[in-house]
Amino acid sequence: MDILYILDILGTFAFAISGALVASKKGFDIFGVVIIAFVTAVGGGILRDIMINYYPINWIGNLNYVWTILLAVLFVFLFKSKIEPLRKTMFLFDTTGIAVFTLLGTEKCLNYGLQPFVAVIMGVVSAVMGGVVRDVLTQKTPLIFKKEIYALACFIGAFTFLGLKKIGLPLNLQYAFTIFTVMAIRLVAVKYKLELPKIENDLFGKIKK
Amino acid sequence: MDILYILDILGTFAFAISGALVASKKGFDIFGVVIIAFVTAVGGGILRDIMINYYPINWIGNLNYVWTILLAVLFVFLFKSKIEPLRKTMFLFDTTGIAVFTLLGTEKCLNYGLQPFVAVIMGVVSAVMGGVVRDVLTQKTPLIFKKEIYALACFIGAFTFLGLKKIGLPLNLQYAFTIFTVMAIRLVAVKYKLELPKIENDLFGKIKK
Amino acid sequence: MDILYILDILGTFAFAISGALVASKKGFDIFGVVIIAFVTAVGGGILRDIMINYYPINWIGNLNYVWTILLAVLFVFLFKSKIEPLRKTMFLFDTTGIAVFTLLGTEKCLNYGLQPFVAVIMGVVSAVMGGVVRDVLTQKTPLIFKKEIYALACFIGAFTFLGLKKIGLPLNLQYAFTIFTVMAIRLVAVKYKLELPKIENDLFGKIKK
Repeated sequence: MDILYILDILGTFAFAISGALVASKKGFDIFGVVIIAFVTAVGGGILRDIMINYYPINWIGNLNYVWTILLAVLFVFLFKSKIEPLRKTMFLFDTTGIAVFTLLGTEKCLNYGLQPFVAVIMGVVSAVMGGVVRDVLTQKTPLIFKKEIYALACFIGAFTFLGLKKIGLPLNLQYAFTIFTVMAIRLVAVKYKLELPKIENDLFGKIKK
Repeated sequence: MDILYILDILGTFAFAISGALVASKKGFDIFGVVIIAFVTAVGGGILRDIMINYYPINWIGNLNYVWTILLAVLFVFLFKSKIEPLRKTMFLFDTTGIAVFTLLGTEKCLNYGLQPFVAVIMGVVSAVMGGVVRDVLTQKTPLIFKKEIYALACFIGAFTFLGLKKIGLPLNLQYAFTIFTVMAIRLVAVKYKLELPKIENDLFGKIKK
Repeated sequence: MDILYILDILGTFAFAISGALVASKKGFDIFGVVIIAFVTAVGGGILRDIMINYYPINWIGNLNYVWTILLAVLFVFLFKSKIEPLRKTMFLFDTTGIAVFTLLGTEKCLNYGLQPFVAVIMGVVSAVMGGVVRDVLTQKTPLIFKKEIYALACFIGAFTFLGLKKIGLPLNLQYAFTIFTVMAIRLVAVKYKLELPKIENDLFGKIKK
């Protein structure tokens, strides 16, 4: 059994749960919750595969993703009041999710023959765009544009992966270090409430004040 | 003349009208109304065709869809005050639309060689995603996530279609029964205000109370 | 050096700046600003290329677009307070942008063998859809649906281009006139606050009053 595949299913499960929680808070019915869970979990991969013209796109080639998502919604339906207090566990799930999706997306695009920098962007797209679609459909300002270092963690992780590939580390170590990088950055950013600067005003505007 | 094609054009007309009405209520100008009518009518099919890599996508292969949409906008422009009270007629149009689009989407994907369950999902996508894009662009919470059994009716209809195919019913009866199933579920749901359960709290949370 | 390519880069720069300004006003962090600048600048072209199944899609084939966008964000970061008062300059940039994108999109689709009317629609998609995605992600009602003659200017420009092609004007003149047409319509519309009619009520409803 492939470790990456297991992580992929885990990431899908985590993202589906995050989508299901947001949708059920918005008062969506069960079917609406399934749809939001679905787009959250596979939306980033759909966008990536469509942009690189990869076929069959992620969830079409393997129905296990769909079953995983349905299982996640069932899980939320049964245990919602138990999950919500487990913020830390959920956060770990989500962080694992973006780390794995970044790695898988970048690797897929490299294997597909795309330029390294395009592969890096696609890794980020894979990891964050599902959440963006979730937020658009539930009418929230997409979190990733404001939240503590989120997409940037994926970006750095994807670059790290390129570096490790060049060094020629064993494949499993490449995977492990990449996932570790994304998770570590994200965890540290959240723990210390690190945020990226905003462009409230330009540099010179700041100096003048 | 193909009966499915006629129904397809009718469904396109109905969806375009629904898009045009929403957009004109939001104060969009005529060109904005055309764009919303367009995405409402062909958005679901675009998403389906892009995801299954079918080319040329729905409206590109046959300009009659575009003419139908422009006709629908002209119709709204001329008769808006007459259409609005005709809610029941419009509702019937819309219901015919989702029924036909579910059938056409599912059949297209089956003929294209996709797994039956993927074809069912694509049937639902064809029927409901145009409306979702319409709601996103006009800043409403997508209705289908809350409304009386909407996407579920398509889902059950698409499954019914699979079943009828397996039984080996004559093609026209397969079509008729599938469309009937979607419409019947939707009409009954609206008449008796049936709604799917929501995940306000989990099962055990409910029992505790 | 190809004049169209230069204009394309200029249009990309202008659109990226417009995206970066909107995103920084919404309080997005630097990475969020980059993402919005990116989708604003290449979103229309992505949608066009995906719909016509053209591969590699716009920005994947040539990383200069990505560098241009990053440069634009840096520019906003450094000079925001200087740019904002330059509304007229920015407006000229944006207008050049939609004019060039309309031309390039229409031409690409014609060369790709699509029907002329489809090419016209795709020209408009190329020019306006990036802005629509920007507005959706920053939770604004997409401007183009209400603003002074915007998409229509592109539409007329694309048709003009078809006409000039038929007449058989030298290629450079075709380009120049098309860009001029879009820009002139947009500039006149804004100067005289021309707006397209809305469907507040239907024609007969108006007559009755």
